[in-house]
Amino acid sequence: MEHCILLKYIFFLLTSRNIYKHYKHIIYYISNYLQSIFNGLFMNITITCNQSDFMWRIYLNPDSSAGSVEVARKSPVASWLCAMLYCFGSYILADVLLGGCPLDYFQYNSHILLASAIWYLVFFCPLNLFYKCVAFLPVKLVLVALKEVVRTRKIAAGVHHAHHAYHNGFLIMVIIGYVKGSGVALISNFEQLLRGVWRPETNEILNMSFPTKASLYGAILFTLQEAHLLPVSKSTLICLFTVFMATTKVILTARHSHGSPFVLIESWVCHLLFGSPLGGGEEEHHAAPAPVAPVSPVKTKEEFGEGTRKRKSKKAE
Amino acid sequence: MEHCILLKYIFFLLTSRNIYKHYKHIIYYISNYLQSIFNGLFMNITITCNQSDFMWRIYLNPDSSAGSVEVARKSPVASWLCAMLYCFGSYILADVLLGGCPLDYFQYNSHILLASAIWYLVFFCPLNLFYKCVAFLPVKLVLVALKEVVRTRKIAAGVHHAHHAYHNGFLIMVIIGYVKGSGVALISNFEQLLRGVWRPETNEILNMSFPTKASLYGAILFTLQEAHLLPVSKSTLICLFTVFMATTKVILTARHSHGSPFVLIESWVCHLLFGSPLGGGEEEHHAAPAPVAPVSPVKTKEEFGEGTRKRKSKKAE
Amino acid sequence: MEHCILLKYIFFLLTSRNIYKHYKHIIYYISNYLQSIFNGLFMNITITCNQSDFMWRIYLNPDSSAGSVEVARKSPVASWLCAMLYCFGSYILADVLLGGCPLDYFQYNSHILLASAIWYLVFFCPLNLFYKCVAFLPVKLVLVALKEVVRTRKIAAGVHHAHHAYHNGFLIMVIIGYVKGSGVALISNFEQLLRGVWRPETNEILNMSFPTKASLYGAILFTLQEAHLLPVSKSTLICLFTVFMATTKVILTARHSHGSPFVLIESWVCHLLFGSPLGGGEEEHHAAPAPVAPVSPVKTKEEFGEGTRKRKSKKAE
Repeated sequence: MEHCILLKYIFFLLTSRNIYKHYKHIIYYISNYLQSIFNGLFMNITITCNQSDFMWRIYLNPDSSAGSVEVARKSPVASWLCAMLYCFGSYILADVLLGGCPLDYFQYNSHILLASAIWYLVFFCPLNLFYKCVAFLPVKLVLVALKEVVRTRKIAAGVHHAHHAYHNGFLIMVIIGYVKGSGVALISNFEQLLRGVWRPETNEILNMSFPTKASLYGAILFTLQEAHLLPVSKSTLICLFTVFMATTKVILTARHSHGSPFVLIESWVCHLLFGSPLGGGEEEHHAAPAPVAPVSPVKTKEEFGEGTRKRKSKKAE
Repeated sequence: MEHCILLKYIFFLLTSRNIYKHYKHIIYYISNYLQSIFNGLFMNITITCNQSDFMWRIYLNPDSSAGSVEVARKSPVASWLCAMLYCFGSYILADVLLGGCPLDYFQYNSHILLASAIWYLVFFCPLNLFYKCVAFLPVKLVLVALKEVVRTRKIAAGVHHAHHAYHNGFLIMVIIGYVKGSGVALISNFEQLLRGVWRPETNEILNMSFPTKASLYGAILFTLQEAHLLPVSKSTLICLFTVFMATTKVILTARHSHGSPFVLIESWVCHLLFGSPLGGGEEEHHAAPAPVAPVSPVKTKEEFGEGTRKRKSKKAE
Repeated sequence: MEHCILLKYIFFLLTSRNIYKHYKHIIYYISNYLQSIFNGLFMNITITCNQSDFMWRIYLNPDSSAGSVEVARKSPVASWLCAMLYCFGSYILADVLLGGCPLDYFQYNSHILLASAIWYLVFFCPLNLFYKCVAFLPVKLVLVALKEVVRTRKIAAGVHHAHHAYHNGFLIMVIIGYVKGSGVALISNFEQLLRGVWRPETNEILNMSFPTKASLYGAILFTLQEAHLLPVSKSTLICLFTVFMATTKVILTARHSHGSPFVLIESWVCHLLFGSPLGGGEEEHHAAPAPVAPVSPVKTKEEFGEGTRKRKSKKAE
């Protein structure tokens, strides 16, 4: 969206009004061409980011009872389908929720080819070079930051799309923006099922990790902006939210932390709204506080959940 | 539907033909206004009933390994989503089955707000007042009766809607009517998954409770009526079925019984069609008859299922 | 498709050009009539094949913790729904993936009635005569061959349908063709859930059986043909693929084998593309090779999977 505006603005500055009139068409074509290159690059970066994300999650993921590399060797079709779900899961889920065709996104053959190439490199590159490159911390930080840029744009696009379909469906806007931002995390149970893993005791809605939560809050903010209840323009909001997400995520990744900057605010809001006891930040929000959980089976379940929560929060990045 | 007819009939009686002609428009507007008030009230009652139903099922539900109140405190988003599924699950499922947009119903912001307010009161009302009020037997009986009124209307509307889309798709009419009447019970496995519970050994289609069965029979009756194979008008059928459902359900609730008035008929029909041995009524239909189940693992499974069946039948009310 | 061409060709040969001109309309009606009879017969054979397939899979299926006959007696609705899924699963899944109405196929009342009649005969025929007839080897071989004829036609129709919706969506064509060919096997996890069985550790995409694999390869071939990358006509391809599938499947059935004729080629391709060790054919592709699986829990999981794999490969025929 704002690429177009930016490019048009640049062209507007560069060319005087008169020249613009005469050379309108030429400039229009050049502008379109540049945009398409830029968008193509952007899409490639998006897919690369998603795939690298997929790789980090899957490659040495302890949740898979059989290692993922073995899954990829034994049943390449299942592994490739999972990779596609990781890449395009948010589009698929949003299409399903809006009543569209789930396979709609698969018509873009170049995106599929790029994603498949990255999938192939991740799992079958000699000496495991590709994985080592992308997992190298500086490269990883750049990809993580780019991924958050992409996420913000996807949330904004999702909210806008839902606004187009349902003008007053504020909840629909929030849901579609959320789904677009969180992607495959929301259907992780079914993605795991494809790989033969089934862990029903946890899902991304029960134990939200930082990116999922941030997507939810972002979707709410963009919905408020779309409903003209926030006194900022869309571009400003995209810019601010991108900066916030990228810096937070880069810092969290650099520190190998799975915390969340929302802990304090959430703690207070939950205390006010739901009467949760104030206190230990993350522990307070995720784990059951000892005085509230009276029965012992619940407790053991929680302790079990504690172990999976850590893997979970890693997974849902 | 029949509200309109009723109101128009009243107006027809009250006003003579001549006055009606002159004051047509005024009366039309008044009638519309009254209808909208009536429909609004009705919808509020519907949502309240569904929510109270949700509350009874969820609030102290033994199927949840972690208590639901704890789930609501720890992950309000998951709890709220479950509440919305309980309220609007039948609309969502029917939309999905007819190829529509699953989020379609969420555009009605006022319904969502009302349902959310009730969800909040159920879980976070001080001193648990709201729950105690609604669980008080006389109030509960009124709500139970109202819920059956709503159920019958939803079945009739579902059958009519499917008839509109597929004129000769009798099976489609039955399915949509059934789904509209049974609501979230049919996707209870996935609703449980959202709360981190997974019990694949039972579902509402394997062990149908009284309301689910009644919805199925009701959907078949309304489909026969829509196909002009029943010699009654739609309003009569709605009226009769509502009275039957409401009285049966009120009596069952007052007696804390989970039986079904269909047991005898079903027993005979199953005997004729499927060669099931005649006999012990409910036991015969739900549990495996001893002489038929030869292998011991099946038996233990059944015994296990026996325990869950009781909770199940409570759940699917 | 080719029926029409065939019939028109016959009529073209039988009638000289002049007579054809004059009696155009009469011949057109006769041709249409014959076609409809032929198609009707064909559809009946299709449904019979699917149902008999369903029966072989379900009737004495060891995967069901409760025997299927008991399921059918106790909850006829669940058993009937499973039978319908087996019969029309491929249509439903293809409709869902293309964004259509999942219940669309249920408008053909005659097909539903025929399928229901066969379901009734399978489970409740006196002396179990129907099952014994269809399971008699010569009859079974004929049905198996017919089923492969149907499968090939369904793959071709699926690819054509997807091509109509997305002209350049080659992946979409492959997926729809695959889904049309493999039918309910791809959603077997959810079909099992309906019967109260849940085996997440295996699915048809992780461990593809011969018919599923052949459907995938067939879908790829038909997509290449549709994209004009194969130098053969569609009719020729349908004919060749049908002959290959029918003969292979008949031989496999007669030998009670669950092998696959693709083993050697797959072994080489996997070696080239994914660096899998060459060797023991089927063992190599399905089971985890010993030197690759280092950790012991994976091993035990695999050993468990080994047992279910055999039942699985039987199931997915």
